[in-house]
Amino acid sequence: MRRRKKNGGSDLNKIYVVGIGPGAYEQMTVKAAEILKKCDVIVGYTVYAELLKEYFPDKEFLTTPMQKEIERCRMAFEEAKNGKKTAMVCSGDAGIYGMAGLMLELSADYPDIKIEVVPGVTAALGGSAVLGAPLGHDCAFVSLSDLMTSWEVIEKRLLAAAKADFIICLYNPSSRKRSDYLRRACDIVLKEKSPDTVCGIVRNIARSKEEMKVMTLEELKSSQVDMFSTVFIGNKDTKVIEGRMVTPRGYRIDRFRI
Amino acid sequence: MRRRKKNGGSDLNKIYVVGIGPGAYEQMTVKAAEILKKCDVIVGYTVYAELLKEYFPDKEFLTTPMQKEIERCRMAFEEAKNGKKTAMVCSGDAGIYGMAGLMLELSADYPDIKIEVVPGVTAALGGSAVLGAPLGHDCAFVSLSDLMTSWEVIEKRLLAAAKADFIICLYNPSSRKRSDYLRRACDIVLKEKSPDTVCGIVRNIARSKEEMKVMTLEELKSSQVDMFSTVFIGNKDTKVIEGRMVTPRGYRIDRFRI
Repeated sequence: MRRRKKNGGSDLNKIYVVGIGPGAYEQMTVKAAEILKKCDVIVGYTVYAELLKEYFPDKEFLTTPMQKEIERCRMAFEEAKNGKKTAMVCSGDAGIYGMAGLMLELSADYPDIKIEVVPGVTAALGGSAVLGAPLGHDCAFVSLSDLMTSWEVIEKRLLAAAKADFIICLYNPSSRKRSDYLRRACDIVLKEKSPDTVCGIVRNIARSKEEMKVMTLEELKSSQVDMFSTVFIGNKDTKVIEGRMVTPRGYRIDRFRI
Repeated sequence: MRRRKKNGGSDLNKIYVVGIGPGAYEQMTVKAAEILKKCDVIVGYTVYAELLKEYFPDKEFLTTPMQKEIERCRMAFEEAKNGKKTAMVCSGDAGIYGMAGLMLELSADYPDIKIEVVPGVTAALGGSAVLGAPLGHDCAFVSLSDLMTSWEVIEKRLLAAAKADFIICLYNPSSRKRSDYLRRACDIVLKEKSPDTVCGIVRNIARSKEEMKVMTLEELKSSQVDMFSTVFIGNKDTKVIEGRMVTPRGYRIDRFRI
């Protein structure tokens, strides 16, 4: 876990920024599981640390709540500086709306510590597998959280993605303070996509109480979602096959009908 | 592996459509590895089957070359019909430009066979981890292959994604017949993004001879890529930190400088 390399007299420690996938142990990569098994301390968001304690009961866990991400990253750097084998965990992937970027930004303050990013199954992929195959063609990921991005930018991206008929996957579709954001997002997308566009919601991907629902864009507009939901809006070719959401890539299967 | 459920007198067989990640065994999910260990036959594209033979030498492999995807899917259904525990493998994820959609489309012809989709680390995530954290904000995935999508649609999507300042990840950026497509794509993106936009190329993700390079959009335009390359075009905030490509999410780290 530690890369021994002389660097101004001190050892170069490594922090692994690990995407743990949607939540279940089995949806972690083999590499992510190996790293967490070998590390001394696991740093992460409180909710995901709780999930991991079940699988790695003998590890030291350090957590911070939401909106304390910078403090969380610094905790990880301090552990690594003290010689601990350290992993910073992110739900889903390490990079997609994850901690890898912030860790690399802050790494300037810790020149002796090297960052290795370990990818994982992000919610778009985990949720897509539950729904069927909604992301079978060009797609765009948009977070509806306006904590760090202005709503004007979010709106512009939604409209552009809808206009060019991207499949759209919405991250952070709701929170207590943003309970009407999904409706607002649907209103924008409805300017360009048909109300009949096939959509889907997945909740608690790969955890107990996993739920999925396929519906139209018009129905999505009045749907209730929470922060554990991921939302999919199809393109013009997306269809429902035996209750599942499927976006064809474009294979001419009619020519090959048996 | 088999779900015993009475369905018109016959057992309901299951095919797993498995995303195997970028290529290395350790970047497969724990679930993907377990399924491949337990199955009798693995169906896939010739190149990826070769990769897997190393890890699962005692399995039966059935392959078809590119552009024989429909035949490949039917082979999998026939194996499952004959009672074999069958996995259809896809590089990266099962859904993102993978076989899950086509398998679900064809499943109408095989009512006794159930499809389970097993997600995996797609090239955008695997490549992103190698580069650093290019996908730290809203992003769009566009395939430059015009085998099944018209170039007009591809062009429209590239322009829309560039205009709304999405990070863009290009799949299938080149092939023998499409050697100038990356240059054409860059010309479109350059209408909206600065020539200084930070970009990256990753080749042979998680395989031997893995390579990465960070450059400007102007430099990307004249770069050579092949079908094993994934290309990343940053947004206006993407920067280079110690040789790595990083798109900040928007945390105000200046306020927290130590």
